[in-house]
Amino acid sequence: MKKSVFRMSVCFLAVFSLLMVGTFAPQAEAAPKYRWKLAMTWPTNFPIFGDAVTKMADMVKEMSNGEMEIRIDSKNKHKAPFGILDMVKAGQYQMGHSASYYWKGKDMNALFFTTMPFGMIAPEQYAWFYYGGGMELMKEVYDKHGVYSYPGGNTGNQMGGWFQKEIKGLDDLKGLKMRIPGFAGEVLSKLGVVVTNIPAGELYTALDRGTIDALEWVGPSLDLNMGFQKIAPYYYTGWHEPATELQFMVNQKAFDKLPKHLQKIVEVAMELAAYDMYARSYNDSAVNLDKISKEYPNIKIKTFPKDVIAAMKTANDELLKKYSAKDPEFKKIYDAQTAYMKMARRWTEISDYAYLKDNLED
Amino acid sequence: MKKSVFRMSVCFLAVFSLLMVGTFAPQAEAAPKYRWKLAMTWPTNFPIFGDAVTKMADMVKEMSNGEMEIRIDSKNKHKAPFGILDMVKAGQYQMGHSASYYWKGKDMNALFFTTMPFGMIAPEQYAWFYYGGGMELMKEVYDKHGVYSYPGGNTGNQMGGWFQKEIKGLDDLKGLKMRIPGFAGEVLSKLGVVVTNIPAGELYTALDRGTIDALEWVGPSLDLNMGFQKIAPYYYTGWHEPATELQFMVNQKAFDKLPKHLQKIVEVAMELAAYDMYARSYNDSAVNLDKISKEYPNIKIKTFPKDVIAAMKTANDELLKKYSAKDPEFKKIYDAQTAYMKMARRWTEISDYAYLKDNLED
Repeated sequence: MKKSVFRMSVCFLAVFSLLMVGTFAPQAEAAPKYRWKLAMTWPTNFPIFGDAVTKMADMVKEMSNGEMEIRIDSKNKHKAPFGILDMVKAGQYQMGHSASYYWKGKDMNALFFTTMPFGMIAPEQYAWFYYGGGMELMKEVYDKHGVYSYPGGNTGNQMGGWFQKEIKGLDDLKGLKMRIPGFAGEVLSKLGVVVTNIPAGELYTALDRGTIDALEWVGPSLDLNMGFQKIAPYYYTGWHEPATELQFMVNQKAFDKLPKHLQKIVEVAMELAAYDMYARSYNDSAVNLDKISKEYPNIKIKTFPKDVIAAMKTANDELLKKYSAKDPEFKKIYDAQTAYMKMARRWTEISDYAYLKDNLED
Repeated sequence: MKKSVFRMSVCFLAVFSLLMVGTFAPQAEAAPKYRWKLAMTWPTNFPIFGDAVTKMADMVKEMSNGEMEIRIDSKNKHKAPFGILDMVKAGQYQMGHSASYYWKGKDMNALFFTTMPFGMIAPEQYAWFYYGGGMELMKEVYDKHGVYSYPGGNTGNQMGGWFQKEIKGLDDLKGLKMRIPGFAGEVLSKLGVVVTNIPAGELYTALDRGTIDALEWVGPSLDLNMGFQKIAPYYYTGWHEPATELQFMVNQKAFDKLPKHLQKIVEVAMELAAYDMYARSYNDSAVNLDKISKEYPNIKIKTFPKDVIAAMKTANDELLKKYSAKDPEFKKIYDAQTAYMKMARRWTEISDYAYLKDNLED
């Protein structure tokens, strides 16, 4: 009898403790079943870009009630800011945060999913990604690399850059030494600009000492902390990155192995973190522009002259046509994006643009 | 012995079945522990607005792995399209989907959280909500009503409406019979417009038969299905609803009782559904504007003359100042929103606006 009471007690305890787990597990935070690692291009504590990643990881942890955790490694840890695609592809990291146009050396067609010179503004581009076929085209490109790619946060329209001298016409571009990376650099090269790339940490000194005459970075949201307003008097409006969208990447095999509800949680968290970074960037640009105008009233905000803009457009079109002729997939994406932009721009013109025109020019 | 083997078997089965539940519950879909109901202002199958609600509810169900489900009741069911705030406040529904400006009769200060005539465009307004103090001000207003209020999806810039005759100056507004609800209606009343409100289902006939001379609805995204392009030749650009944001509402007591991870899931799902509706609206407006221009080439898209816009602005400012003088909370929110808009507009002006100007006017 004693033995059987003991047995019953053990059984009762076993059942009871499991019941407790069954009842309270969804509320109590358990040790994560899924531990992922994310590698990002940015350094530790990089504002806005890094914050979007943290926000995404926090959402995943909270919404999964601790079932899934994502550890974030900055470039200070993994030392390979431009190795993110390779590391995620290899499964060394399950996730990455970077920008699609950084991979154009490996796959030219990755270019289209960040921003294009004279391309779409952010609301047009989000409409294209989610309702105009953009996500499907991005999937076609990235399936070849074994990763899923998603929008990763928008900086808003980027400024054309900081210049030591006013640009009055095309002649002022000839021989100008400027730091401007990527496709926009190729465009300016065609107009005689001597394009260089210089690491972020050396930009201020390079501009201050005259190693370069001009540089582009992001916009007021991130430029203010770099201090360029102290050493260059001309701040030009943008043409080359009208809606820079960063990128989340996920290793396909790792994602496919997740249970359905965690797949959904990860996708929703990435999508919201991206939109949220756009709102954050808009706010921070507005706040910092206000600071610049109050604390640095000598900064002159300029738009490039019409002939300079026209020449940039021509050079840009020529480059895009050259690449289109070489690669049918490039042509397919370029044509689709151009057609969508044309349609969406007509709406932009009679909605926000017409409205702003009434309100700004009276 | 037999008895004790039996007991052991029962115990084993009990433990085993609980283990199974413990192990597989997060993956398998269980009956929902939390069943909520949402009442929306819109009819069954209402596109875009209703789709945003469905999207939100689907996200909650999928991310919670079936732990929480939200049933959606359209106005066809609850019969009280403008009783949503009351029903959510009373706990009759845990959630609602509507628009904050519908409650201005109950609380004038609810007006600020949808859109304002000559107010912010969508990116400015999202920046204000999430990073410029908007959410905090909305909470102050809605705490008095026992509900939490959240952005619920943006239509984008709304068109100024469909008109039978061209508006060439202020005289053409005198005696004009127009359907335009809300605050914008008050503004136009001051300019001599005879403002009426007519239910959605009767609008087409009223405009066709000359009961009214003009009406505003939303924009190409939703106007096309109403058929106004068949009976009115002038389509005016907008001034009165530059970024109409719908509203999710949650009963505070119901929300506070949810476990933390479900609170987060509901909040994230609402926020993403709202942003997503903005992208959807942008796309659908672009696609439908394209259809209008191809299938109804006689439609003339116009902007109101400068003197009409100026008079609308003056009337709008006067009304806002009148309400500000009566209510300190109204003044506080109006001042905060105006100051934020002024700052954000400066950024809009040198970013998207300057960029669009270069690209549209060459």
